[in-house]
Amino acid sequence: MAKPKKTPRPKAVTPKGFRDYFGADVTERKTMLDGIAAVYHRYGFDPLETSAVETVEALGKFLPDVDRPNAGVFAWQEEDSDWLALRYDLTAPLARVAAQFRNDLPSPYRRYAMGPVWRNEKPGPGRFRQFYQCDADTVGAPSVAADAEVCAMLSDALEAVGIERGDYIVRINNRKVLNGVMEVAGVLDPSDPSKFEAERGIVLRAIDKLDRLGEDGVRALLGAGREDESGDYTKGAGLSDAQADLVMAFMAARRDSGADTCAALADLVRGSKTGETGVAELETIAALMETQGYGADRAVIDPSVVRGLGYYTGPVFEAELTFDVQNDKGQTVQFGSVAGGGRYDDLVKRFTGQAVPATGISIGVDRLLAALRAKGRMGGAELGPVVVTVMDRDRLADYQAMVSELRNAGIRAEMYLGNPKNFGNQLKYADKRQSPVAVIQGSDEADRGVIQIKDLILGAKIAESASLDEWKSQPAQREIARGELVAEVRKILDGDI
Amino acid sequence: MAKPKKTPRPKAVTPKGFRDYFGADVTERKTMLDGIAAVYHRYGFDPLETSAVETVEALGKFLPDVDRPNAGVFAWQEEDSDWLALRYDLTAPLARVAAQFRNDLPSPYRRYAMGPVWRNEKPGPGRFRQFYQCDADTVGAPSVAADAEVCAMLSDALEAVGIERGDYIVRINNRKVLNGVMEVAGVLDPSDPSKFEAERGIVLRAIDKLDRLGEDGVRALLGAGREDESGDYTKGAGLSDAQADLVMAFMAARRDSGADTCAALADLVRGSKTGETGVAELETIAALMETQGYGADRAVIDPSVVRGLGYYTGPVFEAELTFDVQNDKGQTVQFGSVAGGGRYDDLVKRFTGQAVPATGISIGVDRLLAALRAKGRMGGAELGPVVVTVMDRDRLADYQAMVSELRNAGIRAEMYLGNPKNFGNQLKYADKRQSPVAVIQGSDEADRGVIQIKDLILGAKIAESASLDEWKSQPAQREIARGELVAEVRKILDGDI
Repeated sequence: MAKPKKTPRPKAVTPKGFRDYFGADVTERKTMLDGIAAVYHRYGFDPLETSAVETVEALGKFLPDVDRPNAGVFAWQEEDSDWLALRYDLTAPLARVAAQFRNDLPSPYRRYAMGPVWRNEKPGPGRFRQFYQCDADTVGAPSVAADAEVCAMLSDALEAVGIERGDYIVRINNRKVLNGVMEVAGVLDPSDPSKFEAERGIVLRAIDKLDRLGEDGVRALLGAGREDESGDYTKGAGLSDAQADLVMAFMAARRDSGADTCAALADLVRGSKTGETGVAELETIAALMETQGYGADRAVIDPSVVRGLGYYTGPVFEAELTFDVQNDKGQTVQFGSVAGGGRYDDLVKRFTGQAVPATGISIGVDRLLAALRAKGRMGGAELGPVVVTVMDRDRLADYQAMVSELRNAGIRAEMYLGNPKNFGNQLKYADKRQSPVAVIQGSDEADRGVIQIKDLILGAKIAESASLDEWKSQPAQREIARGELVAEVRKILDGDI
Repeated sequence: MAKPKKTPRPKAVTPKGFRDYFGADVTERKTMLDGIAAVYHRYGFDPLETSAVETVEALGKFLPDVDRPNAGVFAWQEEDSDWLALRYDLTAPLARVAAQFRNDLPSPYRRYAMGPVWRNEKPGPGRFRQFYQCDADTVGAPSVAADAEVCAMLSDALEAVGIERGDYIVRINNRKVLNGVMEVAGVLDPSDPSKFEAERGIVLRAIDKLDRLGEDGVRALLGAGREDESGDYTKGAGLSDAQADLVMAFMAARRDSGADTCAALADLVRGSKTGETGVAELETIAALMETQGYGADRAVIDPSVVRGLGYYTGPVFEAELTFDVQNDKGQTVQFGSVAGGGRYDDLVKRFTGQAVPATGISIGVDRLLAALRAKGRMGGAELGPVVVTVMDRDRLADYQAMVSELRNAGIRAEMYLGNPKNFGNQLKYADKRQSPVAVIQGSDEADRGVIQIKDLILGAKIAESASLDEWKSQPAQREIARGELVAEVRKILDGDI
């Protein structure tokens, strides 16, 4: 008889582009997000957690980021029914909620949201298909006071989680001013906004790349186009030199004070109603920031910030970390952007037909966490639990009682639960867990009413190879009375020994 | 020319079977899970957050709950590649991680996980397609000390979040004892475990329904079958009266002490090696629980607990809340089960071919939260922010400065950001936010250096209809010096007035 064919075993792999987070990776992110949430709460923002799944209809067909044509969503069709998809950001679900619950929610509605989003992109190095976003938005507030508020809140949030003043700057600009410049330059016709739309898109993305391409690169993209190092050619906006001069002057309009910057911008947009409105809004924002005590060490008006997304309609913001780090190539560079946002007045309109003004910020969770680690604010080795080892298999209850005493005293502790036969494995386990203390009691110690406690921080280096006897001879190991377990362990944990 | 056809507006709806969580629903769940996580951490468990998406291959074809044939996963196919799916629980991803990272993880591996899972089921009342799970498992620990540990931890977790001792009980049983009873009854042949498998499945599910069907209902299912009130007929296991007597005796074997219960069980399974091993394991668990101080007021050996899932291989547990609540029909009933778990030794084997012993618990997040609300431990109305109203549109900076002072003092506060024209709307807004205090300053007050503060908790009832003049005449409203803003607001918040 033929042997029945074996079903092959399933592969145990995280799907491509996805990640698992272990231990400190989970708790450090949680600590950071809890710190941010506390600030958002103090500002009057309420938490919102929408379902991870949305109808494709509600999400809309397109991702906001037009720069990445591969971008898409994970979607599937319900049985004879709607297409559903995983949310690709936290803004689209907010727009849906703001429309769906518009009669129940307070208006304005301040909300924050933190959670995973999914992108159906080709996985690549550092490019993941599930990642955290952390957003705060105000829906239904036409006043730019709402924009100033989220900028101040962003500043507070960064300081709350450990980015010191001076190590970051919130840069603020206004799309209306840029549109005013475009009008003056003749690439925006207020009576026919669809004209030159493609050209303006190229201008927007060119300005957004100033950091990376430098002034010459941006100027090339404003004009005929640009060939990068690989030989790839990017088509330019086709602006004349005079038109490009205007855009370049806009980007360089930052002065020492917000008032001076606004004055410089006013010169550039003279005659454009949109541009003049935009400058007036920036003046209001600058004044409100000043009133709240957010000076040039925390927030500045900076015309070089435009944000790549197409949907912004007014003020845009970006938080940049200004300290140096080494990049992948070993070069010293500024850490760069960790958060951004702006005003988008048209997202809710898709559902209701009525324009609803909205503004908000989004913090790059992974980038901010990386920054905190780079600054030594996170990522210090967390100590593991005290490990009570098992010398005699038939005295589990005794060991368990020790563990209970420690836990009841608030000390993280556990009994070794693997096969106790090989004592070396127990020590290796304690080592792997980064345990601060191992507790050892053989039958001889039990008879004498004592236990051995071992300071593993000191003894870590020899743990790999030590036999029980070697272990016992280490100075970091001491014999104590059974009744002193909690007190003696606490001494080691408190660094008193 | 024909009018261009309008694209219909998308519907703003949460997909069927999904939910959005607002405000306190988010923070209360978070508070509860944080409390549970602190206990798990003290027990030495590490957090793990796997990706929401798994390969269908890794998840396996079938949900563990064989009782619901409609159960399924949300799945889609990658371009020319694997099928991916949303995880349906937190155990299957743990098995995948334990296999994938077996050389890196400590062994035993204690981990906890909290997060949403997704089920592709027909939505129905109270049945959702995305919900939270909160699990803790120990992988790689053959000793039942690991089972006793998670039971003790479950007890501590319930008390930590606000379920008082006496309001819950952890009930512990062992599938091996049930299998021993089946052997003695002649519906399990150790030399051919596939024989009578269907019958044993019916017995298992019948016992699991004891609470709902009562003894007579269970007995009917053990025998020929049972017709429910609607006339639907459920096929029984076809056991003889003598066989059914044995199973019924097993369910009723709980005595006053764990030792007595174990003795009663030992009588029932005499001659079955599996059964005798199971009783010995229960004796060890009972002794370990006792040693750690978990007496009959917290944990008991109870043979009527079997858990419906097919994959348990040893000890099984359930935490039941014993206080009374009103059910949907207005009847007074015990709150019932909020957590459960058990030992499953075969899940990792799917991947590696090697059996890896594992045990764990899962807390029903929504049910426990409902229980805490029923007991008044959660759901007290959370106060909203202090609202600084806007009387003069050109004095935003003044109002914003007041808000900043309050926030810097740690007081949750905000400026009204809607259209300030209608003052009544501002008060309605404050009402909707459940604001404790409204701050009001017209130009006359500004000139005199004073502000009005209004205790909204007292004034809530009249807020709906009050004009500014009526409002000002209320005794809950007082005029204070501008400089006393923070101090006076704090007095109201502290209940000193």
